Amino acid sequence: MGKRIGNQTVKLENRPRIINTTSIVGPKEGQGPLSKYFDIILKDDLDGQESYEKAESKMLYCAITETIKKANLKESDINYLFCGDLLNQLISSNFAARDLDIPFIGLYGACSTMAESLGLGAMIVDAGFAEYAIAATSSHFSSAERQFRAPLEMGGQKPPCSQWTVTGTGSMLIGKDGNFPYVTYVTNGKVKDYGIKDTNNMGAAMAPAAVDTIKQHLQDTGRKPEDYDLIATGDLGKIGKKITEELLKEYGFNVQDVYIDCGEEIFDCKKQNVHSGGSGCGCSASVASGYIYKNLLSGKFKKVLLVSTGALMSPTSSFQGESIPGIAHAVAIEFGGSKND
Amino acid sequence: MGKRIGNQTVKLENRPRIINTTSIVGPKEGQGPLSKYFDIILKDDLDGQESYEKAESKMLYCAITETIKKANLKESDINYLFCGDLLNQLISSNFAARDLDIPFIGLYGACSTMAESLGLGAMIVDAGFAEYAIAATSSHFSSAERQFRAPLEMGGQKPPCSQWTVTGTGSMLIGKDGNFPYVTYVTNGKVKDYGIKDTNNMGAAMAPAAVDTIKQHLQDTGRKPEDYDLIATGDLGKIGKKITEELLKEYGFNVQDVYIDCGEEIFDCKKQNVHSGGSGCGCSASVASGYIYKNLLSGKFKKVLLVSTGALMSPTSSFQGESIPGIAHAVAIEFGGSKND
Repeated sequence: MGKRIGNQTVKLENRPRIINTTSIVGPKEGQGPLSKYFDIILKDDLDGQESYEKAESKMLYCAITETIKKANLKESDINYLFCGDLLNQLISSNFAARDLDIPFIGLYGACSTMAESLGLGAMIVDAGFAEYAIAATSSHFSSAERQFRAPLEMGGQKPPCSQWTVTGTGSMLIGKDGNFPYVTYVTNGKVKDYGIKDTNNMGAAMAPAAVDTIKQHLQDTGRKPEDYDLIATGDLGKIGKKITEELLKEYGFNVQDVYIDCGEEIFDCKKQNVHSGGSGCGCSASVASGYIYKNLLSGKFKKVLLVSTGALMSPTSSFQGESIPGIAHAVAIEFGGSKND
Repeated sequence: MGKRIGNQTVKLENRPRIINTTSIVGPKEGQGPLSKYFDIILKDDLDGQESYEKAESKMLYCAITETIKKANLKESDINYLFCGDLLNQLISSNFAARDLDIPFIGLYGACSTMAESLGLGAMIVDAGFAEYAIAATSSHFSSAERQFRAPLEMGGQKPPCSQWTVTGTGSMLIGKDGNFPYVTYVTNGKVKDYGIKDTNNMGAAMAPAAVDTIKQHLQDTGRKPEDYDLIATGDLGKIGKKITEELLKEYGFNVQDVYIDCGEEIFDCKKQNVHSGGSGCGCSASVASGYIYKNLLSGKFKKVLLVSTGALMSPTSSFQGESIPGIAHAVAIEFGGSKND
């Protein structure tokens, strides 16, 4: 079992490459501080479609086809599409995949889906089961609000600990060869539930899962936080990020110098009035495909740990009095470091 | 790319084993013709829980823990749980996984999830990323009815082409060694949509996907239908099965002598008043973990192609006028054939 490192991590000996990425975001995300890193910024979040759900699916489809086109490949060259979203029964992904000539693996990890899909895609390419695979996810503020919370028309107020679902998508093409950023380790997480029941405080609900996966990853690989230029959680927001930082310190890991949360970065939280920050599958997907990937290419980052985080509740489970379980998956992406580190 | 065979199939050279399985079904399924093959038959479908959703999650949890126990393993020996169900945001799987000390990969393939999870689990074990993995799925008649259709209390009538969601679960333990049935090929499907909009006729909506995946599998492997003792689709029911048989004949494949549909087999359709047959993730999961696996062990079957089939709509997509996309994943399971065939 040479590929397994420690309890929960696998090492990808063949270093599957992330050949290129595409990120698409909505107008509000396009006004945020990471604006220049996104490939496409939508002018309006319906994007000519009849419903927000159809707009989300179109955005995902466009990101995937753009990713294939940029690599001068055809759909039939791609062996697997690993894809998921937040909507009931994954309709954004299913309807995007309907128009693609690619075998489809539907995933649901709530907002952890970008690292879940990237990790699986990288493992499948590493093992030689695929020449090319695509990992992609999306979320949309308006389709998520009406499914998980309340009709937009109601104009309900949000408490300060709440987050704002990112309208965005990220798509990554994984292949075997070339001088591109590559995946070295994947640490898949366990479900953790510390009893948080407030669906407006998902950062707190997901933080224990992020802590568990980061801790496990560092223990399994023998790495220290400072071995990374960046450790990026998916969408814990300001509150969840603070909890994560403090809990990791209790376990002896000081991440503070390298730690960001994609949900905090994608918006100017105060100015854009998004309270604790961004959330949704599309948050870590667009930030990883945009900001992180481009800074790996430019050499600003050499080693990044992407830790997408998901809150695994549904409105039904909350109505039935259940707390909110969390999960986090971690993928180490590297470029330009020395050959043997 | 020695592991890829043809366009869409991978060959598992290390023959990952299905070490054991557990199937649990509800009372109605326990009165059906496959009764003797199920490990546990629930006395009532709430099983002491407060809601059908919690009962479904408990059933799934019990199947997984029973599978681990039978192999004399601990939860911490299992490297991955590949698991999904039909409920919004996979709450059956998430809440089952919450109580398990196993890294969790959430999947959504509608009723195709058993072959999706088994295929991925087998690939991951074959590649050496895991010593043990579990593949499991569930569905529950009463949780599915109220989510996808109408409140049970309404007592709505069902048209003759409709199907009955199986209350059931199947769990399979995949490992590297031992004298057990093993997985040889995995063919993951593409999403196919022929424009069916009637959510009471899911068999017709899924049939084109089943046809495409079976045809592709046979072309990729060079096998003929008669090389299999059994080709089992997941839950097309009588109507979908007939369409599949006819379409495959048009492509030159006569499957009639070896072809069953799990949804048709699990119930005595006429006597048990389930119209076209059973459906749901739990249908192919319980039939594969019960009837098929036990008949592989006994030597009745030597080569089986499990083709779980999923209808990828949601109530929201149907309300918005969308048709029903289908998908089918195929996994070849074999035992006791000659070493090199």
